[in-house]
Amino acid sequence: MKERDIKKLLTKAEKPSKDALKMHPYYRGKIQVSIKAPVRDVSDFAIWYTPGVAAPCKEIKENPLKVYEYTNKGNFVAIVSDGTRVLGLGDIGPEAGLPVMEGKAMIFKYLGGVDAFPVMIKEKDPDKFIEIVKALEPTFGGINLEDISSPKCFYILKRLKDEMNIPVWHDDQQGTATVTLAGLINALKLVGKKIGDVKVTMVGVGAANISIERIIVRGGVDPQNILMVDSKGILNRDRDDIDREKKKEKWHICETTNGENKKGSIPEALEGADVLIALSKSGPGTIKKEWVSKMAKDAIVFTCANPVPEIWPWEAKEAGAKIIATGRSDFPNQVNNSLGFPAIFRGVLDVWATTVTDNMCIAAAESLAKTAEKRGLHDDYIIPTMDDKEAYIEEAVACGLQAIKEGTARHHLSEEELRKSAKEKIEYSFNMSKLLMEKNVIPEYKE
Amino acid sequence: MKERDIKKLLTKAEKPSKDALKMHPYYRGKIQVSIKAPVRDVSDFAIWYTPGVAAPCKEIKENPLKVYEYTNKGNFVAIVSDGTRVLGLGDIGPEAGLPVMEGKAMIFKYLGGVDAFPVMIKEKDPDKFIEIVKALEPTFGGINLEDISSPKCFYILKRLKDEMNIPVWHDDQQGTATVTLAGLINALKLVGKKIGDVKVTMVGVGAANISIERIIVRGGVDPQNILMVDSKGILNRDRDDIDREKKKEKWHICETTNGENKKGSIPEALEGADVLIALSKSGPGTIKKEWVSKMAKDAIVFTCANPVPEIWPWEAKEAGAKIIATGRSDFPNQVNNSLGFPAIFRGVLDVWATTVTDNMCIAAAESLAKTAEKRGLHDDYIIPTMDDKEAYIEEAVACGLQAIKEGTARHHLSEEELRKSAKEKIEYSFNMSKLLMEKNVIPEYKE
Repeated sequence: MKERDIKKLLTKAEKPSKDALKMHPYYRGKIQVSIKAPVRDVSDFAIWYTPGVAAPCKEIKENPLKVYEYTNKGNFVAIVSDGTRVLGLGDIGPEAGLPVMEGKAMIFKYLGGVDAFPVMIKEKDPDKFIEIVKALEPTFGGINLEDISSPKCFYILKRLKDEMNIPVWHDDQQGTATVTLAGLINALKLVGKKIGDVKVTMVGVGAANISIERIIVRGGVDPQNILMVDSKGILNRDRDDIDREKKKEKWHICETTNGENKKGSIPEALEGADVLIALSKSGPGTIKKEWVSKMAKDAIVFTCANPVPEIWPWEAKEAGAKIIATGRSDFPNQVNNSLGFPAIFRGVLDVWATTVTDNMCIAAAESLAKTAEKRGLHDDYIIPTMDDKEAYIEEAVACGLQAIKEGTARHHLSEEELRKSAKEKIEYSFNMSKLLMEKNVIPEYKE
Repeated sequence: MKERDIKKLLTKAEKPSKDALKMHPYYRGKIQVSIKAPVRDVSDFAIWYTPGVAAPCKEIKENPLKVYEYTNKGNFVAIVSDGTRVLGLGDIGPEAGLPVMEGKAMIFKYLGGVDAFPVMIKEKDPDKFIEIVKALEPTFGGINLEDISSPKCFYILKRLKDEMNIPVWHDDQQGTATVTLAGLINALKLVGKKIGDVKVTMVGVGAANISIERIIVRGGVDPQNILMVDSKGILNRDRDDIDREKKKEKWHICETTNGENKKGSIPEALEGADVLIALSKSGPGTIKKEWVSKMAKDAIVFTCANPVPEIWPWEAKEAGAKIIATGRSDFPNQVNNSLGFPAIFRGVLDVWATTVTDNMCIAAAESLAKTAEKRGLHDDYIIPTMDDKEAYIEEAVACGLQAIKEGTARHHLSEEELRKSAKEKIEYSFNMSKLLMEKNVIPEYKE
């Protein structure tokens, strides 16, 4: 790519930030609360509020699961964050993280028909944080943890999963892993390699890659064929700089991957690798062209750092990579969490699931991969795009069915019923949003 | 009133409960989350979410008050409850209380344009409860406490007011008091008595009446002229059954009211009283006809227990009362909290107030009284009805102006700007609700 084109691209890449600074104060918020039931006139409040409301309250008191029928609990998700690791910005605090969680709530609703609400928590101590989130359970059908620093995010997720009766999800873990696996499945189809045979090198050992490693292993990758690299080099059994207690997950990887007990850093790890999955430092230059050129034939490169991938896609291509995915919407093959959480929660909520297992994530990933395959795979199209409504519906169905199969669902629906429910809710939300814009309730943006 | 008519009335009074049991499962929730900013297509998520959203995040990090400009914090209110004293149902728990808080959120939005969200908290210990609510501060512009048992509700409110930088409100305290004062002001105008002269007897010493006492004293009633009666009789300085530490507020009333140190119970307390304010046990029969007949000429009777007033209005009338108010929408003069909180929060939020003082409540009450006076007072019309949109707008203005005057506002608007802001937001919300019903996004209820 020419210097001039790169410059153009970079300028274009800055546009969302500029627009964001103008448009955020214009709208003062990206989500709001709306009524969901009719108010024919104010006398209806005698039904929805006192005195009439006492009747459903009493029924829930007698039969707690009725809360899913008499309220919106079954469609409420809390997006919970302490703001300690927001995007690539680090610990900017809960107030400054609110725009992200509001944006996420918007995506939850627009794409998944899920009523998500941002809950920023001013508490950094993980044990106190856990007590707070647990206390919020009565209102919500699910919890989406977000942008919490590592390694406490593992501890928080594990305890909340164990101790709450509703699904708890950390999008930076299972979410990213689901979408990455979907892309990997299809990329392997295109290059004709089997998931059980490929050598996978992973750069970055944060929450995302740790979870991706777990999920792709469960999805068929042989852990002995995985090499994971952090800033000190390839993880292996001889690494004595890793706190085995405080960084359990990382140590587990040292013990289970790297069958040949390889040493070295990224260049060594990439030699002969079939797949690179990088979620590390914003690039370019984190991954070098000459390293990619040492990968196996038909190399698959996922370089998903934000805002700039570890290596520019055209550089990776020039170095011989066949399929390249990034985290950006302005390149092909965007590994985009928004393809995961809205639909996964749609499915999970519709069956009143108590948890989201890794196998439910894998079912979701396989469904996403299948939808893309139906559309026709090629090097620049390995996962559905965000505007593919059917992809969300099918993903929700896959996820809900898996929950029923595993016995984590409390509300059993047939495949057809699940599809109907997901379709209705996603279309409801899409049509509601469209109507509000068309009728100018949400005004057009004017400079 | 005839036996037959009473029967009819009681049947009618049960209708909201019956409708509630049918309509709650039909809609499965009374509020939902909606987008507030446009999604022209999915590429807009690059502005509202990553990567664009990082820019407003960074600005808030540098300048924390910008969170009011870049997010909806300034219009978010948490309706927080532990479910320990829900309506007249007692401690039914946080799940069973959710329908009430959802209904309240609906009213907040429909009448005040406020984006309120129910937050049910599974924690009964007041200190732990306080820590949880404090941790929620980053998302919200205000906190509405609701249906928390007494006396811990006083302690919780006081500490949260002291320790949080956003307004904390307990609707069962300041809310009920505001609307009661509004009605009292106008009732006194109609009977031509001065607030500083009247003898007020209050039956019931729960959170509501304790707060009403404080607010009407601040509004002009001489505390020496107040008699408060609990189940053991008139409060006075010789009562040794009241824990002076644990029930501070109640003991304070023993010390400051009842100038003549009267003893006895309701009948003795009502002799010669100008005003009765009862918020005690659901009737009828809690207050007897013969007691009301011993009150002063042109007696004013507020019997606000739910679901049934302490005495039926027609009985009070037959006993000689001139003006009668209740908590019910099917009688005239409904003392209805919904006349308070939506507009008070509208005003408070629009000026980014840090608290709601009693004087702000009094300003709100006076504004409500004034609007009703403008419409033309008579014995059956002493406070505005719920569909009086102008009443809400003016109340919000009064409240916001008072906050500015007291120095609790962080965003200064002129009276005209305040009125414009309140009007726009209330109409926005009303029109949005209407549109969703008209266009069948919220479908009609069908049996």
